Amino acid sequence: MENIIAVAQKTRRAALKLAVLSTEAKNQAIEAIAQALESAKDEILQANLADCETSIAEGIAEPLYKRLKLDEHKLRDAIAGVRDVGKLADPVGTVQIHREIDTGLILKRLTCPLGVLGIIFEARPEAAIQIVSLAIKSGNGVILKGGKEAVRSCETIVKAIKQGLSQTAVNPDAVQLLTTREEILQLLKLDKYVDLIIPRGSNSFVRFVQDNTRIPVLGHADGVCHLYIDKAADLEKAVAITVDAKTNYPAACNAIETLLVHANIAPKVLPQISEALQHLKVELRGDERTRQILPNILEATEQDWETEYNALILSIKIVDSLEEAIAHINEYGSKHTDGIVSEDEEAAQTFLALVNAAGVYHNCSTRFADGFRYGFGAEVGISTQQMPPRGPVGLEGLVTYKYQMSGNGQIAATYTGANAKAFTHRDLL
Amino acid sequence: MENIIAVAQKTRRAALKLAVLSTEAKNQAIEAIAQALESAKDEILQANLADCETSIAEGIAEPLYKRLKLDEHKLRDAIAGVRDVGKLADPVGTVQIHREIDTGLILKRLTCPLGVLGIIFEARPEAAIQIVSLAIKSGNGVILKGGKEAVRSCETIVKAIKQGLSQTAVNPDAVQLLTTREEILQLLKLDKYVDLIIPRGSNSFVRFVQDNTRIPVLGHADGVCHLYIDKAADLEKAVAITVDAKTNYPAACNAIETLLVHANIAPKVLPQISEALQHLKVELRGDERTRQILPNILEATEQDWETEYNALILSIKIVDSLEEAIAHINEYGSKHTDGIVSEDEEAAQTFLALVNAAGVYHNCSTRFADGFRYGFGAEVGISTQQMPPRGPVGLEGLVTYKYQMSGNGQIAATYTGANAKAFTHRDLL
Repeated sequence: MENIIAVAQKTRRAALKLAVLSTEAKNQAIEAIAQALESAKDEILQANLADCETSIAEGIAEPLYKRLKLDEHKLRDAIAGVRDVGKLADPVGTVQIHREIDTGLILKRLTCPLGVLGIIFEARPEAAIQIVSLAIKSGNGVILKGGKEAVRSCETIVKAIKQGLSQTAVNPDAVQLLTTREEILQLLKLDKYVDLIIPRGSNSFVRFVQDNTRIPVLGHADGVCHLYIDKAADLEKAVAITVDAKTNYPAACNAIETLLVHANIAPKVLPQISEALQHLKVELRGDERTRQILPNILEATEQDWETEYNALILSIKIVDSLEEAIAHINEYGSKHTDGIVSEDEEAAQTFLALVNAAGVYHNCSTRFADGFRYGFGAEVGISTQQMPPRGPVGLEGLVTYKYQMSGNGQIAATYTGANAKAFTHRDLL
Repeated sequence: MENIIAVAQKTRRAALKLAVLSTEAKNQAIEAIAQALESAKDEILQANLADCETSIAEGIAEPLYKRLKLDEHKLRDAIAGVRDVGKLADPVGTVQIHREIDTGLILKRLTCPLGVLGIIFEARPEAAIQIVSLAIKSGNGVILKGGKEAVRSCETIVKAIKQGLSQTAVNPDAVQLLTTREEILQLLKLDKYVDLIIPRGSNSFVRFVQDNTRIPVLGHADGVCHLYIDKAADLEKAVAITVDAKTNYPAACNAIETLLVHANIAPKVLPQISEALQHLKVELRGDERTRQILPNILEATEQDWETEYNALILSIKIVDSLEEAIAHINEYGSKHTDGIVSEDEEAAQTFLALVNAAGVYHNCSTRFADGFRYGFGAEVGISTQQMPPRGPVGLEGLVTYKYQMSGNGQIAATYTGANAKAFTHRDLL
């Protein structure tokens, strides 16, 4: 524990200086990282090969192996991603409020870095590359903990990054790598030194992190997304959106798990959806009324309504009204992204207003819930919390703000009591 | 516990409808509250009298009694405050992002209510009045728990409020009052039904709340604010700001607890400050070097640097540089509000940039750190957390946002793979 505190303090000191660097200096550091990674390419791929061999010997699962494996193509993309981050607008220093409180007494609210980020990710080693570039761009120090399978890859990557930074205004201490599993729990205890934890991994892992730290956590445990097919739905759109939202990338958090269908349209739309999805090898599970229309599918239980399958499985429920659909979503959903298919504008507006989720969609696929697709240029996570930042979070999720007040000797006593002077409260922005 | 869950569910259902009311409907409800309180004036004052008598019999402390005691004047001000909230801009429905993702695929980010607020306050019964009006204005349901001394006052106030609401579009269930102490712990466990807890009370009480809930907490435990007198300080400003920041309202969280003084200016400024403050009965405590200049004051210990006195006590430390002052503040401060007095613009800018606090001030009193003084029209709390909302928080702290996406059948598959269509990402705002 002592050791990790020392690491965190070192990161914090370096971050304090990084926080006030100009956009230009940060971009130079980002370019230096890209170049250092290019120079260390062979070394990184070799380290990854060693990681892969060990993992195979230990019987790694196929999907995990795919994420661990780094080839020249993936690495080149990751380095291109670093340069893309360089091109993003600097999230630091934005003036959100600029107000005269009284003559000569000026208030500004300015964005500033959070401080130190703690990022815990799983097998994908190139995640380290993306995260470090986003941290530097937003002026934050970063403590990384990668999956144990990728330990050599991550060490080699971080070594190259630090070497690149050593020639820039950014102190290499701003980037740290933890390598042992025990250090995760220690990291989660560092609420004095770490300002935000971003866990990337399985639902159960994210929930573990949320339950074991006082540090704010950016992320989501579950993505139980819904699509509701209203009685006034266009059939073609309903089928196309259902297929896309379920099968375009079933392991994504913005894929749907449950389809709600209005009773009036169910007999027409469900057979079409069933045909399209079963053709794509999607397993369907339905409530009793659904199974009257689709008798060959499995029965959906209470458990199904709250399950994120992360797989080609879809639960289906028939509802008698828009209100019932909304109530089901607000009860079982995870506040991620939920959609309605309807040509009835009023029904759509009611749905968008009353469903409590970070994303509420009308006549389009839930799969659009993504920072890049929203045009943020980057995504640091998707939050399903009620408080902002919520939904897909771009660089703005890595900054906070502070209030700066400048005067020429003003004191509060002047503005209180019987002869209190009035504030002007004049916006200068 | 079952009972409080039923209360919370009832609040939530009412809040869901309140969330989508128009500004006009909410303002009508706020006016109805003001009128109902006016009608119930005698009843409220009588209930308060009973509370006061009980408290006196139980030996209530003088400051607490002062806060508990409601007179016609205080009540009239509180009702005027309700009407002021009616005049504030509606924080709900603000469009923060309006963007074309592709032709016909439109993304909006809109502010919306949080849902249900849990507010725990101490003796002051009129706090219930202000809080309910802010909750209604921001479209949130609210569960109140007042201090046990004020139980009859609060019951009478909430009864009047509910009676006022009964003639409006707002369901009176949106406002609930808990009356027993046991219910506080139960309330803190309702993370499924309550979206934000705002504790108003002592530092130890706020810390208790923070440590015993998974619900986000808006508030601050400590307000250890600093003033640093730089070597290039104007003496007159330094003395006036120190006196104001310490004595204008010593029990406020934005009053200073520690004065840092540059060694070069200390021999000149400290005797003046000492004279002014001792005249106002402020007890001074100094480090060794301060006591060489002010030999008659007490010694400050390590404990002093981290103590919020909430009283006429000030600790003083001499530092050799701006950097030392900043390091002291970042180590011992509570990230509330810290100021510098200096005519050196560069030193001031360094201080404002490097001190990590919600408020960083130059040549003015820390006492300005307040939602009303900032021009927010209301203050729901002051947050010392690193993440937004930070500092004094107005109505905007009671809302969140959601992303609304509307299309005409768009699916993600169109925008992926070899023939991927490009997004337009055109801002419409």
